[in-house]
Amino acid sequence: MAEEQSAFITALNTTLDDFLDRQQHLVSDISPDVAPLLDSIRTLVSGGKRMRALLAYWGFRAAGGAGLSHQAVQAGVALELFQGAALIHDDIIDRSATRRGRPSVHQSFTDLHGRSGWQLDPERFGQAAGILTGDLCLSFSEEAFASIGPATASGTKAREIFNRMRAEVMAGQYLDILEEVAGPLRTVAGAAGRARTVLRFKSAKYSTEHPLALGAAIAGAPDGLLERFSRFSLPLGEAFQLRDDVLGVFGDPATTGKPAGDDLREGKRTLLVAFLRELGTEDQVRNLEALLGHASMSDDDVQLIRGDLQVSGALGAVEAEISSLSTASATALDELDIAEAPRLALHTLAEAAVRRKA
Amino acid sequence: MAEEQSAFITALNTTLDDFLDRQQHLVSDISPDVAPLLDSIRTLVSGGKRMRALLAYWGFRAAGGAGLSHQAVQAGVALELFQGAALIHDDIIDRSATRRGRPSVHQSFTDLHGRSGWQLDPERFGQAAGILTGDLCLSFSEEAFASIGPATASGTKAREIFNRMRAEVMAGQYLDILEEVAGPLRTVAGAAGRARTVLRFKSAKYSTEHPLALGAAIAGAPDGLLERFSRFSLPLGEAFQLRDDVLGVFGDPATTGKPAGDDLREGKRTLLVAFLRELGTEDQVRNLEALLGHASMSDDDVQLIRGDLQVSGALGAVEAEISSLSTASATALDELDIAEAPRLALHTLAEAAVRRKA
Repeated sequence: MAEEQSAFITALNTTLDDFLDRQQHLVSDISPDVAPLLDSIRTLVSGGKRMRALLAYWGFRAAGGAGLSHQAVQAGVALELFQGAALIHDDIIDRSATRRGRPSVHQSFTDLHGRSGWQLDPERFGQAAGILTGDLCLSFSEEAFASIGPATASGTKAREIFNRMRAEVMAGQYLDILEEVAGPLRTVAGAAGRARTVLRFKSAKYSTEHPLALGAAIAGAPDGLLERFSRFSLPLGEAFQLRDDVLGVFGDPATTGKPAGDDLREGKRTLLVAFLRELGTEDQVRNLEALLGHASMSDDDVQLIRGDLQVSGALGAVEAEISSLSTASATALDELDIAEAPRLALHTLAEAAVRRKA
Repeated sequence: MAEEQSAFITALNTTLDDFLDRQQHLVSDISPDVAPLLDSIRTLVSGGKRMRALLAYWGFRAAGGAGLSHQAVQAGVALELFQGAALIHDDIIDRSATRRGRPSVHQSFTDLHGRSGWQLDPERFGQAAGILTGDLCLSFSEEAFASIGPATASGTKAREIFNRMRAEVMAGQYLDILEEVAGPLRTVAGAAGRARTVLRFKSAKYSTEHPLALGAAIAGAPDGLLERFSRFSLPLGEAFQLRDDVLGVFGDPATTGKPAGDDLREGKRTLLVAFLRELGTEDQVRNLEALLGHASMSDDDVQLIRGDLQVSGALGAVEAEISSLSTASATALDELDIAEAPRLALHTLAEAAVRRKA
């Protein structure tokens, strides 16, 4: 299993590189000035844990697809490029200057502007270039997906999943930014429910459920099997995102590659925050509402909210939820009638998704 | 011909509406809060001249495709959605508050924030929502394109054109914003060449050459015919964009739906601007460089540059170029061995593209 997985990752990286080489060749015919668009996509997608590609691969294998099939590799390429596109625009939306421990794409264009001594506003240029680079990467993901062939043609289950995944993640991201601005005016009682909707659509379905189903659908899995896969993958994705939420507040910048308390400065109204609003004292809630979403938040402010999240029981409630989702997910995996290699691989991926530190 | 074109437009509008209805249904399952994303796409794509869809349709017909074929209608839907996505992100990049005489998409979200009394920064929310809406619209265009069926499957000529169109327009847009910031430091001698590259890739190929070729390719046109089509459509697209550039500076806000001199405030370094740098006096060039790209530019400043563009001969040079491109395009159309209905339709579209006031 480990050997097969490592061979898959090698094939994935090679295919992704070849794809970007072809694109680089095509756009360099337009002008050499276009090179930074491709370079920044390449740098971004060369990193990452390949979780979505691996879930698609093992979904494909679990549904009876052949080992190291080119179709499954291409599906991985499409998913990694889609993830790249989502991250590029996400970082503009969240004004995140770093990603995976390096400058985010829009920041790299702002830096290029500064280094080159160009005119007008470097940040505005960086944002504009980032929007276009994300669009290009989104188009690439589709191109890679279509190139899988008849298994992803119009009307197929795989195409339906890919379409749904894209629409859901964009809708989920919108609900996320909407909650940042509208959340304080909405009911506290509904906050946890709204946070769950965001985490399900913005992240859980897209990070685990859809990639796994996509791989399985390409291998020809019937609907019943896809439903059984979801019983494993959806709670896993929810646990994965809750772990992400915890790391976004309590994570160590040295391992996450993002500044401490980043999610708080960005004003993310995660389940963690919803629980603090429900469980916290009046003082704690007042502090939270005064600070959340303000980029000027000091490290002491971050430390204050961290303490409140712990003392109020909000952190404990989220950790309990991660635990129970993980258990539900593991049980559903055990109940799946699949070969041992994919089962072991999915088990390992699931552990890593929930236990991770970055 | 006019009757067929009007039946096509009706079929296009109905199919586009049905497509958006299905998407609305899908995302409203997530949350009713997502409705404004779909609403803003619908409002945007309900406007416009349908030029790209019509070019694809008549390209399809000229290459022997059947009248009012569903494939050609779907190609029009995909192109209109792609154009919508490009406009949404373009308006964020250019900070344009209006589009087609109404608030641009990101502006409509900024307005929604204001009306709703939400927290944090309305403009930032508007931009973020606009980025996501554009991404959604871009995904929709691909979904519509794939649904055409085997004629747009991976490996087909139509798919190759669609992929190339997307990459070229994004690369061209990047070169456009790059020239805004880097242009002042680059050689005056090279400015016209750089402006031509931008207009070709950002606009000409995407507005006319690729839509026409796409329709023809779906109908099974051989490469030779596509090349002969390009001799008509590429100069037409260049003339179209040069007309756009002139309207961006000299257009009447009442008919363009955009503020007077918008392109100057945005700092667009069009061929018009390149010619002024080449042909203008030292004073004129100094004025231009001091004002271009500054949102604070007064109406008097706009009037000053307009005068300089006329007096220097820059406007005349661009008008001469529009004329010669139109002639080349018309000659190439005459030489095409196609049926009379598509020829007449393409002739009428070409006239409208170059003579328009908005």
